[in-house]
Amino acid sequence: MEKTLRGACIIGQSGGPTAVINASAYGVIRTALDAECITKVYGAAHGIKGVLNDRLYIMDEEDPYELELLKNTPSSELGSVRYKIADPDKDDKDFKRILEIFKKYDVRYFFYNGGNDSMDTCEKISRYLDRIGYECRVIGVPKTIDNDLYGTDHCPGFGSAAKYIATSCMEVSKDARVYDTGMITVIEIMGRHAGWLAGSAALASFCGSGPDLIYLPEVDFDYEKFCSEVADLYKKQGNVLIAVSEGIHDANGKFISEYGSSLAKEKDAFGHSQLGGLAVQLADELKRRTGAKVRGIELSLLQRCGAHLASKTDLDEAVLAGKAAVEAAVAGETGKMVAFERKTVNGNYSCETKLLPLKSVANLEKKVPLEWIAKSGNNVTQEFIDYALPLIQGQPERVYENSLPRYARLKKVLAK
Amino acid sequence: MEKTLRGACIIGQSGGPTAVINASAYGVIRTALDAECITKVYGAAHGIKGVLNDRLYIMDEEDPYELELLKNTPSSELGSVRYKIADPDKDDKDFKRILEIFKKYDVRYFFYNGGNDSMDTCEKISRYLDRIGYECRVIGVPKTIDNDLYGTDHCPGFGSAAKYIATSCMEVSKDARVYDTGMITVIEIMGRHAGWLAGSAALASFCGSGPDLIYLPEVDFDYEKFCSEVADLYKKQGNVLIAVSEGIHDANGKFISEYGSSLAKEKDAFGHSQLGGLAVQLADELKRRTGAKVRGIELSLLQRCGAHLASKTDLDEAVLAGKAAVEAAVAGETGKMVAFERKTVNGNYSCETKLLPLKSVANLEKKVPLEWIAKSGNNVTQEFIDYALPLIQGQPERVYENSLPRYARLKKVLAK
Repeated sequence: MEKTLRGACIIGQSGGPTAVINASAYGVIRTALDAECITKVYGAAHGIKGVLNDRLYIMDEEDPYELELLKNTPSSELGSVRYKIADPDKDDKDFKRILEIFKKYDVRYFFYNGGNDSMDTCEKISRYLDRIGYECRVIGVPKTIDNDLYGTDHCPGFGSAAKYIATSCMEVSKDARVYDTGMITVIEIMGRHAGWLAGSAALASFCGSGPDLIYLPEVDFDYEKFCSEVADLYKKQGNVLIAVSEGIHDANGKFISEYGSSLAKEKDAFGHSQLGGLAVQLADELKRRTGAKVRGIELSLLQRCGAHLASKTDLDEAVLAGKAAVEAAVAGETGKMVAFERKTVNGNYSCETKLLPLKSVANLEKKVPLEWIAKSGNNVTQEFIDYALPLIQGQPERVYENSLPRYARLKKVLAK
Repeated sequence: MEKTLRGACIIGQSGGPTAVINASAYGVIRTALDAECITKVYGAAHGIKGVLNDRLYIMDEEDPYELELLKNTPSSELGSVRYKIADPDKDDKDFKRILEIFKKYDVRYFFYNGGNDSMDTCEKISRYLDRIGYECRVIGVPKTIDNDLYGTDHCPGFGSAAKYIATSCMEVSKDARVYDTGMITVIEIMGRHAGWLAGSAALASFCGSGPDLIYLPEVDFDYEKFCSEVADLYKKQGNVLIAVSEGIHDANGKFISEYGSSLAKEKDAFGHSQLGGLAVQLADELKRRTGAKVRGIELSLLQRCGAHLASKTDLDEAVLAGKAAVEAAVAGETGKMVAFERKTVNGNYSCETKLLPLKSVANLEKKVPLEWIAKSGNNVTQEFIDYALPLIQGQPERVYENSLPRYARLKKVLAK
């Protein structure tokens, strides 16, 4: 049996925020507060930067009700960070500082909630502490709307973003088809390298009202083919709705967002960077070619912070991931990331946690399988729908004040 | 007592769609189907164009449950139109055609759901039919997210759009302040001439997490003042969130969206129209001046079709407006628009309908009172909050399928 390890814990949030990353923080904090061997629970202000800068919030001081409201609160309430930590074998300056802080607060548990890069940070800290013989259990908690983490069936954050995207596409589809005078609408969706989010727009069409064409970064984007596909459909049905991933690129790997439209290209000749996003540029080019009325819509930050449209499944699983991380650490695990395994029980979706070595997930990217992309290259297949649909199910209970969301109000008392 | 008028009715939807315009259609259709003197209920395909083109859907053929789902369905389900009808005293071609169709289907009730321009259409039809002595009762049903209709306390559609804007601003506010590296975010909100929608962003700040600065079109926009206000705040607090109405303009009445940023201005010199919206342009200029990381977000169509965030108050009132229109017409009224009167009962908000002559509302615009705008010109006052807050209250019951909205699926059987 694993010996009990007594000491404090730190939870840090890292990378782009999501609608449910605070739900994972809640899972970690609540479980850690309830764990007998965990003597104190600290939240790092802005992830690893909070450790390096000795800025730790004492979670034990928070009102339990406010902590519970973290499930209602989008974005990273403790603050996030994008900080690439060195390899401890080459430069251990940051790690020495981390050790100093860990010793100061007797930190024996470290939970880091993030995507690929954060798992890399997590792995390096784990490796360093192990090497110098400081006993500390390090567990990664997955998070990313991009759903591109390796080794896990899906990631907390994806289901809610997918639900936001699908719902918004349904609504825009209704709006953009309201006149009989014709219109081409381009919706730009996040996902620089993987098309999970753009593909989720297909859930809207599956439910009766969504994009006609969807372009993912897994397939090289052919500008001429795209324009003729849209023009044909415009001629045929008058209204066309298109969803594109921000990460679509040509066969040479050049992002289409860097092309600009023909106008932007002319401007580029004067050495200026272009204005407007991909959606506006594609819409502009389609207007030039078809004469249609066009509109470019970028879902922007809204898609990753749309907590009011969170999936209950996603939110519950986000809490579960945090809880599982603490339970695993208390049980003696370290150097692992919590991952999800999909089970089908009596034909119904269910999800269990498992542990993966941090080393096996850090810095890898999981893309949409090519066989889940339609042969036409402009849509996803039923397999994609079957994969994504269970992840957006259910409406979580929401707490309102004045009929607007009531977010957690933490005291954030700094440890000294 | 008014004599009973037997005959068919037509309901048409016009202008920009909203989250609850179909709820008003439901109010009209359901009440008309239940009214003994109304022999048939037609929905005009694309508003007045559907009348001119003899494209009328038979609402009696629809499944009652699907009709009820109109309350769950954003945008104009019958199709909308932007068509400026002539003055019947100058050119009666369209009106002769309308009369022909009205006679063909024995139409004695005409309900038109829209904003300023639609009330103008409504008034002209009413005037023409009255002049030539064809008995038909014409009632306008108000609708506009812009909330700029004259003579009514507020308009159906505004409360839901305001709620979408406030909720989205709360979420973006959480997201945009997540890093400690500083960011300036500009959110562009609809409203070409009136700042009701942009002002609604203040509801987010009132609830604890929203824009720092809000600019309405009621106040001349001073570009230099704006830039220095933002720069000062950025220096002070690192993160700044700004909401601007798309309609902000300088003292000469020129829209700021036509300025472009300094880059766009250079491009204009080559005679090209600019790319990107106001938010991107302002963000770009703020980046140039402050060196900050910036992001421009346009809420675009999402704010007017965001039915999933509809206000229950707004939705109920939208149904009420449709119902009141039919009841008034059946009771003998014509040439009127349904309007709202705000009552305070035991300190609580309540709303009653009244009737206004179409002539008194057509083509007029109601703006935000200057005394509801902060002296600084970059925010609204508590009076604005007190006005808007009751209108966003309550979450309507929503119907889901696969956890996504279940919209009405109408048969749309064409009358012959």
